[in-house]
Amino acid sequence: MSLDFQSYREERRNLIDAALDKELPPETEPPAIIHRAMRYAIFPGGKRLRPLLTLAAAEAVGGDSLSAVPAQADREVLPTACALELIHAYSLIHDDLPALDNDDYRRGNFSSHKAFGEDIAILAGDALLTLAFGLISRNGEVEGTERSSIPIVIGKVAGAVGTAGMIGGQVDDLKPEGNEITLARLESIHQRKTGALIKVCLEAGAILGGGGQEEISLLSRYGQSLGLAFQIADDILDAQGEEKEKASYPALIGLEESRKRVKELTGKAKEEISSLRGEKEVLEKIADSILERSLKEKDDF
Amino acid sequence: MSLDFQSYREERRNLIDAALDKELPPETEPPAIIHRAMRYAIFPGGKRLRPLLTLAAAEAVGGDSLSAVPAQADREVLPTACALELIHAYSLIHDDLPALDNDDYRRGNFSSHKAFGEDIAILAGDALLTLAFGLISRNGEVEGTERSSIPIVIGKVAGAVGTAGMIGGQVDDLKPEGNEITLARLESIHQRKTGALIKVCLEAGAILGGGGQEEISLLSRYGQSLGLAFQIADDILDAQGEEKEKASYPALIGLEESRKRVKELTGKAKEEISSLRGEKEVLEKIADSILERSLKEKDDF
Repeated sequence: MSLDFQSYREERRNLIDAALDKELPPETEPPAIIHRAMRYAIFPGGKRLRPLLTLAAAEAVGGDSLSAVPAQADREVLPTACALELIHAYSLIHDDLPALDNDDYRRGNFSSHKAFGEDIAILAGDALLTLAFGLISRNGEVEGTERSSIPIVIGKVAGAVGTAGMIGGQVDDLKPEGNEITLARLESIHQRKTGALIKVCLEAGAILGGGGQEEISLLSRYGQSLGLAFQIADDILDAQGEEKEKASYPALIGLEESRKRVKELTGKAKEEISSLRGEKEVLEKIADSILERSLKEKDDF
Repeated sequence: MSLDFQSYREERRNLIDAALDKELPPETEPPAIIHRAMRYAIFPGGKRLRPLLTLAAAEAVGGDSLSAVPAQADREVLPTACALELIHAYSLIHDDLPALDNDDYRRGNFSSHKAFGEDIAILAGDALLTLAFGLISRNGEVEGTERSSIPIVIGKVAGAVGTAGMIGGQVDDLKPEGNEITLARLESIHQRKTGALIKVCLEAGAILGGGGQEEISLLSRYGQSLGLAFQIADDILDAQGEEKEKASYPALIGLEESRKRVKELTGKAKEEISSLRGEKEVLEKIADSILERSLKEKDDF
């Protein structure tokens, strides 16, 4: 089948945003300030890549066709897809804090601590992370979910965003331990700081979508390659923009070699899933979009 | 039976500490600095009230007798008991930060941000919270655990420490919204900031220990009363010590009335569990120890 990827992405984005709106406490509910801060970090948001990947992974193992109404697979993984977006948002809030990256702006608006103060920003990040695990646990209440898979997903997510994953990558990025930045070291930081969360989006979708071990493993490898490609594409956009100087692929190997690496990795990602029997066109298009991204200007993916 | 509570508590503390040591990443494992910071927040630690309550709740519904070797019920809930201590430690690290309570000391040592810097302190708190949910998910791997209870426990814990619970209490404590502090308002803050986590320790232990709805409910109500009693006892100790001036029970109703309230609440807690058929002596002794605490000097419970 041929997919109108733009329409698909828009439709899924609306589905995800509606679910996020439903799951976040209302702004008026006391203590209102932290609920406002949580929503400020989520809306309007970017392209929702992470939940999109979770939904697509569930479709890829479920074999559901793409239709105007959200596929069954989508509904089954939606709470967990939202949770992974909450975790992404928490990591950005804490990353932006004065003690870490000290960024006053995020997507053209004030970062959370500039808008709400450092205290509320720290607690809003904590609250988003906490709510995320609560949401995954509630995925078990969704009809069709194999309840015994929930602890497995939570364990994988905790591993991916803990000190062996995302937080570990942040620490290594903050405290370079005096060594020269080599490509291997930069790749290790990228794989953990950005890649681990992207990879676990695929794994969670595949597990909750009822995928077998082999399918889960293929999608995990797709996520591994895609996550690194995504971060290199981000480095390329940073190198073109006004971003502050930091260790990056373009700084180490140049723009052209970096683009070549993105092309290799997105190609590898697509190859990983070539033997999947379910609906994989979305995942292929996402890989293509990352490659295109590395050739374009910075956006807010 | 008559219980040597001191010996019991010491034995359980050793059991809990050994499990915490096993579950926390080694200090030498990279990125070492954050693993050192995580352990710094956990060891030597206080009396491990929260995991102790979790173990005791499991025993109270399991009917295991107290023996020299840890009861089966203990082993079955140990990962979750440890997780609840990690959550307690995370909340202290973030509470102590300059943007929140700005405390340079904790239990006579430097607080985490003084020892490791604000960036690592923030991330160490995040990592402890993340690891906690990972640990609860792994409780499902413990022999004898009803796996379908894991998502229920995670949902309850996320609720207890999110904006409807612990974080919400912290926000209200930080941002008093201009109103005069009334006893009702102070009690509401206490119930959420300290009480909600204590209460969920009981619920988690009761659920994982295989308790029925009625038992879970009785232990939850015990936890509700105990949690508030614990915080008022803490207020009393603060009022006696050198702690900074803040809204507290003694400030609002005086020391003697505060002690009376602790006595009422611990009495109520014991009454709640009087109909339980399992081993409840530990829970009674813990309630008594809180009452005694309100009559003593500040320690590091």
